[in-house]
Amino acid sequence: MSDSAPPASCKMTVRVALDNRPGVFAQVATALAEEGANLGAVDMVTADADQIVRDITFEVQSETEGNRAVTRLQSVPHVRILPAPDRVFQVHEGGKIGVRNKLALTSRSVLSLVYTPGVGRVSEAIAKDKSKAHLYTTKSNTVAVVTDGSAVLGLGNLGPEAALPVMEGKAMLFKELAGIDAWPICLGTQDTDDIVRAVQAIAPGFGGINLEDISAPRCFEIERRLKASLDIPVMHDDQHGTAVVILAGLMNALKVVGKPMETIRVVVNGLGAAGLTCCRMLLTAGARQIIGCGRQGIILFEPRERLVAHRDELLALVDRDRPKGSLRDALKEADVFIGLSSANLLTPSDMDLMAPDRIVFAMANPDPEIKPELAMGHCRIFATGRSDYPNQINNALAFPGIFRGALDAQAREINDAMKMAAAKAIAGIIPDDTLSEDYIIPSLFDKQVVPRVAQAVAQAARETGAVRKP
Amino acid sequence: MSDSAPPASCKMTVRVALDNRPGVFAQVATALAEEGANLGAVDMVTADADQIVRDITFEVQSETEGNRAVTRLQSVPHVRILPAPDRVFQVHEGGKIGVRNKLALTSRSVLSLVYTPGVGRVSEAIAKDKSKAHLYTTKSNTVAVVTDGSAVLGLGNLGPEAALPVMEGKAMLFKELAGIDAWPICLGTQDTDDIVRAVQAIAPGFGGINLEDISAPRCFEIERRLKASLDIPVMHDDQHGTAVVILAGLMNALKVVGKPMETIRVVVNGLGAAGLTCCRMLLTAGARQIIGCGRQGIILFEPRERLVAHRDELLALVDRDRPKGSLRDALKEADVFIGLSSANLLTPSDMDLMAPDRIVFAMANPDPEIKPELAMGHCRIFATGRSDYPNQINNALAFPGIFRGALDAQAREINDAMKMAAAKAIAGIIPDDTLSEDYIIPSLFDKQVVPRVAQAVAQAARETGAVRKP
Repeated sequence: MSDSAPPASCKMTVRVALDNRPGVFAQVATALAEEGANLGAVDMVTADADQIVRDITFEVQSETEGNRAVTRLQSVPHVRILPAPDRVFQVHEGGKIGVRNKLALTSRSVLSLVYTPGVGRVSEAIAKDKSKAHLYTTKSNTVAVVTDGSAVLGLGNLGPEAALPVMEGKAMLFKELAGIDAWPICLGTQDTDDIVRAVQAIAPGFGGINLEDISAPRCFEIERRLKASLDIPVMHDDQHGTAVVILAGLMNALKVVGKPMETIRVVVNGLGAAGLTCCRMLLTAGARQIIGCGRQGIILFEPRERLVAHRDELLALVDRDRPKGSLRDALKEADVFIGLSSANLLTPSDMDLMAPDRIVFAMANPDPEIKPELAMGHCRIFATGRSDYPNQINNALAFPGIFRGALDAQAREINDAMKMAAAKAIAGIIPDDTLSEDYIIPSLFDKQVVPRVAQAVAQAARETGAVRKP
Repeated sequence: MSDSAPPASCKMTVRVALDNRPGVFAQVATALAEEGANLGAVDMVTADADQIVRDITFEVQSETEGNRAVTRLQSVPHVRILPAPDRVFQVHEGGKIGVRNKLALTSRSVLSLVYTPGVGRVSEAIAKDKSKAHLYTTKSNTVAVVTDGSAVLGLGNLGPEAALPVMEGKAMLFKELAGIDAWPICLGTQDTDDIVRAVQAIAPGFGGINLEDISAPRCFEIERRLKASLDIPVMHDDQHGTAVVILAGLMNALKVVGKPMETIRVVVNGLGAAGLTCCRMLLTAGARQIIGCGRQGIILFEPRERLVAHRDELLALVDRDRPKGSLRDALKEADVFIGLSSANLLTPSDMDLMAPDRIVFAMANPDPEIKPELAMGHCRIFATGRSDYPNQINNALAFPGIFRGALDAQAREINDAMKMAAAKAIAGIIPDDTLSEDYIIPSLFDKQVVPRVAQAVAQAARETGAVRKP
């Protein structure tokens, strides 16, 4: 595995039976190394005088490479590959979420409370006053996690069935982090009108809509039309969740380097859904100089006044046909680089063009715009979306608390003030005297995050009149 | 409360503080009786030398009557009504179902299995072979409980929000009885095309579709179009669940009275969704003489050959404009009356027109076509949808096992053979030597029902080639 290859990102576990004699495991380790696989955990399954069975975990760059490594192991003498469950697929069998009844239906008397005839009175009460659905039904605590499968993770247009395990994972995060009952809705259409109609149709049963993994530019129109037509919170998380957490991290990073938001020059590389929404959020937060780059080079470069005037439709200012310079041009004297693009398109010498005390957020998923090992000597603060380096910018820091706050406040929407409040709350988790180059953003597992974000979001909802009942 | 009034159907509980002196409770009981309320449970909450607090449950015909009874209690000397939670509304607060994570997301390593990066491999595997969604996602065990709120219980067109508590109750039954993860989908449209499109759109994420409380005749077209276009089981439970359980009960009732299905004369009163589907199911089971009645009288009366030929579209034979006689005409020498109509339209003298050993299923909900007390002396076997009399014909005996079997077999549809197998399985739970006039149908809480129905349905699915993987 050469030094310049991107970091490995696929973990595999294989169960092998080794003859119980000296040197066999060393042969296995050597074979894996020669195939470019990084050896991870090695667990003993069984052992006797003749053979030892082990589960060997290794990391490779892709499933193809992993399969090649397994094939290679089959040719090592005294080694047999055993059929063994792949842990990832194993935990997915039968799905990862289920329904839980809050009451056990073990008697007719309970049944008559939760179903006929008792339930009829609740239905009649809601028919008279629809807002009571927010009190007496799951609508009070549910979010539909809606996708069309057109942009699943970084993997592309895999379709609704393939998106389902991701949406289930998202629902798990909603439940674990915020106690929200989220259900995956994977749509069998990628037509904008059909998606809007389908979500409008199912909306009465949900308290909120989390749009997910819908490709740009359709995601903008879909979100806009749903926000305009529904009276429950609608948020496309790939845009806003990411932008909120980037802003939170940037606020803290700027404190560490001692630069105000109003004076920094920010390069945003990658003007997809997340990139454009990130630009918009930075403008809302007070940033004045924003340069947007695409594969073509600089394609969004306007005076602040014009950017602010077009804040809600920045896409209209993007001019992909007439780039105004290269990414390197953009980077000259920039204080901040925010990458929402793809792997390995930034070099250390690119970074050296930036201003002193530079901040680099390389968010491409799973492999960042520059390898952390290469970047770290060339900037003051470095952040990625990855969990295996400091400063993980993870949108799961935002969406659970944002929806928790919106549901708690019975908000009708998620507005800019609520998102800004979420960013400030996330940033504020870390006390100023604890901030450092390697600690600008709290951990996903920090128990303070969701309650503090939720409280700030609910308060902003009430202050901006976005709530159902004042 | 006069003797001819329909049975009470609304239970209320009120918390009252009574001065601790003789005769006060007797005044309360008298006041309730005078208001036509039947006194039920009387629970002690607290007691001291001055006062006793009790929760008093009583039964009335409607919420309006209940409120009048409470107002009356307020005027009884030495009695004070206390604010107390209404048990039905109390159990509905926040909804009755939630999401359960099958794994706790307590560490990064679990997160990397169920969410990024691990989940990406599962998504890619499903993208290559969509059928793997039935193995590695919740699709394997989920049913969408879909309504448009147009025919909620017997209450009418209350809309999707008001239908939600009923759909949640249905989801609870799915979970409790069959371990199926059902999620309510309450649609904000009552347009047939829009409903079909919305259900088609959400179908990729579900293993089955249970249509519920959608009014006739739209329900027929909606179900037909969805069955034709989707490759997962679709069933309108109000039609088929009810018909399956009626058939099961009738099979056993005919055994008790010793009449074969092929010779009986059956009157089906009420030709809505359930009534027409019941006729169809009886034809499939071998019945030859069926007379259908509506409010106008006899409106479906054709030779068996013509009925059988039109089995899938009986609605086309219904002639509401030219009734061929009255309900009394239909009842003459009939062996079986099946009512799926409304309360109190059958009298004992009507029943006396029928043949000896007559069977009467009075299924109107919540109050049957004739009061059980009046009917019981005038027929050999009497059944209703109510839980407080013998022979409860409850569709919850059918739908959990039908969907369990369909999901277990990875069926693409629920066909006639599967429904017939379900009816026979339900009937077969009761051994022949245990059958009696008062015991023709098993209890909802009989643990044998779901596994036996599921097994029979799955086998029928395999035998008829209705399964995804043979």
